[in-house]
This record gives sequence, C-alpha cells and structure tokens, in this order.
Amino acid sequence: MKQMTGKQSISFSNPVYIVSGASLVGEKEKEGPLGAYFDHVMKDPMCGQESWEEGESQMQLEAAKLAIQKANLKEEQIRMIFAGDLLAQSIASSFGLVQLNRPIYGLFGACSTMGEALSLGAMAVAAGYGDWVLALTSSHFGTAEKEFRFPLAYGNQRPLSSSWTVTGSGACVLGSQKTKIKITGITTGKILDYGLKDNQNMGACMAPAACDTICQNLNDFNRRPEDYDQIITGDLGKIGQQILLEMLRQKGYEISRQHLDCGMLIFDEAAQDTGAGGSGCGCAAVVLTSYLLPKLESGEWKRILFLPTGALMSKVSFQEGKSVPGIAQAVVIEHEDA
Amino acid sequence: MKQMTGKQSISFSNPVYIVSGASLVGEKEKEGPLGAYFDHVMKDPMCGQESWEEGESQMQLEAAKLAIQKANLKEEQIRMIFAGDLLAQSIASSFGLVQLNRPIYGLFGACSTMGEALSLGAMAVAAGYGDWVLALTSSHFGTAEKEFRFPLAYGNQRPLSSSWTVTGSGACVLGSQKTKIKITGITTGKILDYGLKDNQNMGACMAPAACDTICQNLNDFNRRPEDYDQIITGDLGKIGQQILLEMLRQKGYEISRQHLDCGMLIFDEAAQDTGAGGSGCGCAAVVLTSYLLPKLESGEWKRILFLPTGALMSKVSFQEGKSVPGIAQAVVIEHEDA
Repeated sequence: MKQMTGKQSISFSNPVYIVSGASLVGEKEKEGPLGAYFDHVMKDPMCGQESWEEGESQMQLEAAKLAIQKANLKEEQIRMIFAGDLLAQSIASSFGLVQLNRPIYGLFGACSTMGEALSLGAMAVAAGYGDWVLALTSSHFGTAEKEFRFPLAYGNQRPLSSSWTVTGSGACVLGSQKTKIKITGITTGKILDYGLKDNQNMGACMAPAACDTICQNLNDFNRRPEDYDQIITGDLGKIGQQILLEMLRQKGYEISRQHLDCGMLIFDEAAQDTGAGGSGCGCAAVVLTSYLLPKLESGEWKRILFLPTGALMSKVSFQEGKSVPGIAQAVVIEHEDA
Repeated sequence: MKQMTGKQSISFSNPVYIVSGASLVGEKEKEGPLGAYFDHVMKDPMCGQESWEEGESQMQLEAAKLAIQKANLKEEQIRMIFAGDLLAQSIASSFGLVQLNRPIYGLFGACSTMGEALSLGAMAVAAGYGDWVLALTSSHFGTAEKEFRFPLAYGNQRPLSSSWTVTGSGACVLGSQKTKIKITGITTGKILDYGLKDNQNMGACMAPAACDTICQNLNDFNRRPEDYDQIITGDLGKIGQQILLEMLRQKGYEISRQHLDCGMLIFDEAAQDTGAGGSGCGCAAVVLTSYLLPKLESGEWKRILFLPTGALMSKVSFQEGKSVPGIAQAVVIEHEDA
C-alpha cells in the first residue's frame, strides 16, 4: 500500500492508533498546573539510583513499563522501540531500556525527540512492520544542567529567557488495534539555522523551525490553522511563542487562538521561577501523555498538530562559538469515534 | 502491503535498491589496505574548517552531496535523511547537513549508526514514504579522541585492545528504482550489556550484541551462515572477532569462513599501529560504500549480512563506573541481476 505523501508529510492510509500513554515526573512538575494529570511522581531526583543519569534511565524504564502495562501488553509483544534523550550518546535511553530486551532504534532530535519517535513509530506500524511499537523519551533537570549549563551547586543566575528542563519521561504504545486516538499523519522537520547563538534563549533558536514545519504541514495537507483544535509546540516558551506567532503572521497565518506550548503549560512561571517555561525532551512527552491525549480520547479535541521542537547544540559546539540550529517534528493526532 | 516480519527481522516484499554510495576518508585511511577504493581523501583533518568538529561536519556534507550526485539526483529529490554520528548531541550531522535543507531524522546508534540508517531508510522506501532516501554517518579521529578519550596533545599510550577511530564519512542513496544492489531485509538489534567496563576494549563490549543479532537473523530468515557470502561486522576488531566466533561456536554456528570485520579491513595493524582495528561510525560506512558495494554490484558476492556494531557509552557513563552495552543493526544486502 502506497501512503499518500506530500512534500515533507505522510498521510497514513492505514490508521495508527495510540494505545496507551504514560507520564512520570519530578516533584517540581507535580507542583505545576498539570500536577494532577501525571501518572506518577518521583520524589527522589535519583529515583533510588546513585546518580542523576541513573535516575533518568530509571524514569525512562518505568515510563516504558507503565505504558506497556496500560496497553495490556507483555514487554515481549513490543516489536520495536524508538527512543532517545538529551544526554551525550543518549545514555538515559541506552542504560534505561537495556532491561526491556527489545529491538530498538536510538534517536537524537534534542527536545523534538518525542515527535521523532512518534513519527518513526507511526511509519513502522502503518507499514505493517510491527503490531505494537513503543515511542518514548525523557529529560532531567539535574542531568541536563550538568550536560549543557553549570554545576547545580554553582547556583548561577538564570536569564528570564532561559528555560527550566523538565524532569520527566513520557511513553506511548502505538498499534494498529483501534482506540479512540489515532495518528493520521506526520510532517518531517528540516534543520533551520538562523544564526542565533544564545543557548539561554532556546525558544528563539527553535521558533523558525516550528514556523517552517507548521507552514509545511498546512501546505502539504491543504489545511488552515482552524482545521486544528490546537497547534501545540514542545518547549518554545513565552519568548519563542511570540516569535513563532509573529513569523506565522508574516506568512499569512494567525494561530494565536489555537497555539499552546507544552513548556508554558507545565510550569507556573510566576510561582515556580521557571523563566520562559519548561524544556527538555520530557516536557512535550509528559504533557502529551498526561494532558493532551485524554482531551483527544474524550473528543473534546478532534484534531491537533503536536510538534516538539529541538535545539541542536552541544557544549562543544557552544564553546566553539557555533549557533543553535532548530528542528520541529510534527504529528497529526485525531479523535477516533468508537 | 504487509511486509513479512520475523521476531526481530523484516523481509521487504517491495525491493529497496542502493542507488549510490560515497566514501570520504582521511589520510591514514587512504594509506591503509583499502586506500585505492575510497572516492575522496581529506588531506586537511579540519577539511578547511576551523575545528575537527567542523571538519567532520564538512566531511558528512560532502559525502552526502557526492552520493546524491552519483545517483544523478538533485538534493531536493531526497525525500528524507537518516543520519547520526558519535559526537555528543550528534553535532557532526546537525551542523553538516543543515545546508542540504532536507527533512531529516537524527539517529544515535554509536558505531552501529550506518546499519540503523540503512534499516530505517529501507523501511521508509519499502513502505512508499519516499522515492529516494539518504542514509549516512561519519566519525573523525580528532573529534572522537577528544570526546571519549584523551587530548591528542597528551600523547597517551594506547592498549593493543583499543581501536583507532576512522576519519571518514559514508553515504548511500536508497530508492525503489532498480539497480544491481538491493536491501532485502533487516534485523533490528537489542541492547546487550555483559557488564564489561573497558572502553579501550570495545570489541569485547560489542561482540555479544553482534552474536545475538547474527543468530536472530539466521533464525528469523531460516538461514545458515553459508547462505551468506560474507557476514561483515562493523568494528569489532581482532579481539572482538575472536569473541564473536567463539560465542557463535557455542551456539552451533561456524562463520570463520564468512566473517569479515570492517575495522580489520581498513587498517594494516602492523604497519599503521592501529591496535585492534578501526572503529567509529565512519568505519563500517566507508568500507561498505567503497569496498563492499562494488563486490555486490559485480555479482562477486550474491548476498551479505552487514551489521555495524555500536558501543553505547559516554564519558559521563564511563566516569560514573558504568559498563559499556553493545548493539548491532543488521542489513541483508544482495546482488540483483540486471
């Protein structure tokens, strides 16, 4: 069966269903506006392990197990896993998922990873490569600050434009078995580099990629913004959102009524001192699995465009004075009437 | 069209052809046994850029352009790219491929990346998600030593079990248009952790994963080792090879007559002081595109099992005393009679 494909998009002729979603978060996320929606809270930032990295791996393993359990499946029924994280050489996924003993493809999309994992997972299910596929990612404030910024003990000041890395892991089981939530299409992102170099303002670095992917999606599917109940970016934050909305206006699109950003949803900026908003692979992943999917399942939303956004940089590229390119991987998720 | 899938393998009912392959290497690789086969040599390890990282990005961009040119395609005809590298946050790919302005999925599979990219690329082409897909990766001695080991200026001694990171980038264009080389199946790897912690003996860390993927491939496709002209691992090196052959014997398979290792092919250990052999994502990728593909195209080989092997670790995981899990992603490549 040949799928209908646009310039950068795929419309699945075989439906791909989201069978289950699981979300694990840390205490700060639990204290935020979405606190009541998460499946489980890790009170210990090391999740009972000996390092933040081991803690993040443990979070990812527990999110995976919970999603598989919610789908009423055994681990051995998962045909393949698509997973990645923010850490160098994706150690959160490698060490977290080894125990599942399932076939796996490791991904790197920075904070766009959940969009990439859902896209590749949906492509695999729609093509008949597996009955059930697991898509997941994670991030952790402790591991990310250590990886990209300053030692936590250093207590550096954070500019208001900086984001706060979400401690959390979100996992989805995808399958061809009918549920009330389906992935009907994807739009694959391009890497965009506008030359911005401020890794404390990643929203600005990622906004152009989000704009490009949204325009391409509307173009490929011949839709208007109103055709989506919500267009939901991953972690642009409030500054990135302003830039995105303005860039889209210049292209003739007004999405301010439909736009939500997972980074702005997950924290109460004023009360939690989280700068521009939440960030990290886990941000979009846990907001999707805890807050967005139930609204699609209930039919409150009929169709959303979910596009996690990634800032492609490392401490080496930053120290060598390189810019911070962005990418956004979009997934069209719809309510399916039972 | 539902593909025939085994426990961990996919047999493509729609043929996927390798349309072109390109290989760029450094001078040490050019001086090795395969020197005559590479497309292009970078005399400057920074490839005219200002850092090793920029040099690796440039290599990856030039390998991509050369593969696209050899396929007689324009860059805009590439429907999607699957790419990754060894560096933290995959900066070689992100900064190298931004210029191509094509839809892209970033991968992390350590040195198994070429196997992962070919697998996902073949899955995409077989499913009709795109007419032409680009699969590529790279590694660089300077960037990898800096990322994982010691500053080059430090001039540390290298144990004989250590491998020498290949400076090179290999790229393949995949498509549904008939050529003399086709990908007929894949076997997706699992992460295996035997608890080994010596990052200067990565062959030993990866051998169990190679053994597992080979056994699974023979099992899923109901084949014997003799059904392959060659079974070619990525960068196990001479120590990893001994372990692999012994592990397979214990499982009842004797592949010593069929086994080749890209890491052992690319350097002359005695003359080039490269320890156990070559390593790095680029090792399997440039050996495939320069030396292996022509033998399949000519029909000298009818069918090979190509399985790049990856050691999943970072300097953080190493410094935290973690082991080095391995993974191997296998691709079945066959000669197609014109």
